[in-house]
Amino acid sequence: MRIEILCTGDEILTGKTINTNYSHIAQRLGEAGLEVVHGTTVGDDRVSLLAAFRQAAKRADAVIVNGGLGPTIDDLSQEVAAEAAGAALVLHEPWLARMEAFYERRGRVMPANNRKQAMLPEGAEFIDNPIGTACGFAVTIEGARFYFTPGVPREMRRMLEEQVMPRLLASAGLPGVARLKRFHSFGIGESRADEMLAGIEAMAPPGTVKLGFQAHYPELETKLAARGADTAELDRILAPLEAEVRRRLGNFILAEDRDSLESVVLGALSGRGGSLAVAETFTGGSIAARLLQVDGAETLFLRGVVSRDPAQLAASVGLAPDAAAAPAMAEALRRASGASHALAVLVTMDGDGTEAGGSISIGLADPAGALLREARLVGGREWVRLGAAELGLDCLRRHLAGLPVDERLDFERR
Amino acid sequence: MRIEILCTGDEILTGKTINTNYSHIAQRLGEAGLEVVHGTTVGDDRVSLLAAFRQAAKRADAVIVNGGLGPTIDDLSQEVAAEAAGAALVLHEPWLARMEAFYERRGRVMPANNRKQAMLPEGAEFIDNPIGTACGFAVTIEGARFYFTPGVPREMRRMLEEQVMPRLLASAGLPGVARLKRFHSFGIGESRADEMLAGIEAMAPPGTVKLGFQAHYPELETKLAARGADTAELDRILAPLEAEVRRRLGNFILAEDRDSLESVVLGALSGRGGSLAVAETFTGGSIAARLLQVDGAETLFLRGVVSRDPAQLAASVGLAPDAAAAPAMAEALRRASGASHALAVLVTMDGDGTEAGGSISIGLADPAGALLREARLVGGREWVRLGAAELGLDCLRRHLAGLPVDERLDFERR
Repeated sequence: MRIEILCTGDEILTGKTINTNYSHIAQRLGEAGLEVVHGTTVGDDRVSLLAAFRQAAKRADAVIVNGGLGPTIDDLSQEVAAEAAGAALVLHEPWLARMEAFYERRGRVMPANNRKQAMLPEGAEFIDNPIGTACGFAVTIEGARFYFTPGVPREMRRMLEEQVMPRLLASAGLPGVARLKRFHSFGIGESRADEMLAGIEAMAPPGTVKLGFQAHYPELETKLAARGADTAELDRILAPLEAEVRRRLGNFILAEDRDSLESVVLGALSGRGGSLAVAETFTGGSIAARLLQVDGAETLFLRGVVSRDPAQLAASVGLAPDAAAAPAMAEALRRASGASHALAVLVTMDGDGTEAGGSISIGLADPAGALLREARLVGGREWVRLGAAELGLDCLRRHLAGLPVDERLDFERR
Repeated sequence: MRIEILCTGDEILTGKTINTNYSHIAQRLGEAGLEVVHGTTVGDDRVSLLAAFRQAAKRADAVIVNGGLGPTIDDLSQEVAAEAAGAALVLHEPWLARMEAFYERRGRVMPANNRKQAMLPEGAEFIDNPIGTACGFAVTIEGARFYFTPGVPREMRRMLEEQVMPRLLASAGLPGVARLKRFHSFGIGESRADEMLAGIEAMAPPGTVKLGFQAHYPELETKLAARGADTAELDRILAPLEAEVRRRLGNFILAEDRDSLESVVLGALSGRGGSLAVAETFTGGSIAARLLQVDGAETLFLRGVVSRDPAQLAASVGLAPDAAAAPAMAEALRRASGASHALAVLVTMDGDGTEAGGSISIGLADPAGALLREARLVGGREWVRLGAAELGLDCLRRHLAGLPVDERLDFERR
């Protein structure tokens, strides 16, 4: 089945908004084994839209249209869909009632122009939007099936997963359930991970699971994209593969699925009633910033100190400027802040440009004592900065999980 | 003139890479007064590419093709362009020589498959790439002019500005030089800025300057997109408008063009031999992170302290936990760090969801004393977080520039 993604709207066409909806839709379809063959972008313009619909109908078997379902005059998707399908626009009473109830719950009267959002081409298949006023719908235009989705990313994503993808998988003759299992790791490069996971796909029935990688330094994402008849079958197919990925990538796996290194670290601290303080040089406060983005982090993250100068960090925890070794720093910070755990990440840079290197000292303190992890990364300032922040957080994760903190990373230079 | 942007490559088609090249090209063309009417995305596939070229030729007068100029087997742009134009591929000797010299300067031998990058359709117009091995070119296909550009963003951007846009402007019959003047402000909403700048365009000769806005809370970008015969004419046209924008938006203008609030603050400190320390609650370390992203910031930014708990901030500078008012905090931090200036941003949150509000206290200390700025923002945690960080930095900017720190913001609730 050949699929086209057709994005509409002046904001997207003129580049004012970066088209992240396109990449989300294309990525999710690809992960489910569906093939996107063409992408189109057009503005809020009747003539362009109609031409784009007609061309897409010639090229593709299925078309996902994104945007143009809003209440304003420049939202033209329903109208142009009706014209292209040779159908009249008719009121979808149940959706009008849903919208009126939606407004009523908020104590407001529905503006008259929202009524437009309940006008669908006659004979269209209604597609629910449980979280917004733009319902979706599907119509057939010149032999191709068109699925209309809202431009608001949150609404589009939910409608895609729950409504559009099951329909596409069914009409592609593919089993009805797809799942993407993700592992996040640090310390293994993409090509080595590929070697380490050789033969994984063959553990599943042919054609059901696809292994893929996405490197975003310093992390690597390993994906198992699976299809099955139902959730139970997916569980059965994936369980042994997931166990094997965990076994082979081992301690390098930081987190799975929606979890992140930060959320895993904070979860482990929270689970034992702990708390954290962090001192960092050179990493630009990025360790604190990453941790504080996690929901609920503020109650666990007691204090962060950032400076280029280890003497400043030392002074802030009452140490002499020359007593600034990472474990001593971590221990002093732990005592000063009252946190159960403290992390100090100190970096000394040398070299220039893409050959700039950093010698990293990580100190980690808890009630039982303090430890040191040293490492060297080379590849420019930003490379060292990202790697040092990741390494500091990963040492803490490993320490909290009772894993060795000194396993060698692929990125490390000796 | 109708322009189409045609992006090629499996990474883009499958959504693995977000298509920021498209939005950059569309935005720059729009700012220069050129009209983009259609966007197309196709993969590295001969049949799709050829069909896309032919369809684009029908729709548009000019087509910018991005990507597919690399040395590998899946880079097909030259080949398909030749086929579509009905021309043979011929070696462009000067570019081959340039590539060989490029490799020689790096002490390497050019790999054989790079030769492919010097094969252009016979009769094509060569377009220079001063910073890479993928040269651009232009050919006419079925009456439309096609401009081929590399997928590497840095190379594409430079080629677009220096080579492609002047050609497009010339063939659109527009004067040959375009310029975008940008002002960054904080505290004025888009609709009020629009009112405040009413009549600005009319100060320039008709059709030469277009006023536009782009809101990315908490900042607003005000743009003057101008066209003129040459640089001197642009200077003449823009000078009075720029002065008028500065006069009307006044103290709310943070920075112009490539400068940012952070770089302006650090520049002002550096200019007087000063330095800075920052204490922040609730802003997640984002003030430190923003400042530390500026080149050279590390020598000026002496210390940052981050905590949800003002008592932690107080303890880190030797104050009693209850002596944590923002000006006292700033002054204590200034002394403890040895910085000339210190900023303390304290936030107390109340409410929930999108109605969550924050009461913000900003303390600012320098050798002459300490001051307080208070404000209230309502609109959810992230809204308050972004606004508080911006307000703190803006107070420092205003103070360093001798401007009042308490001018009311459009976002502020009393």
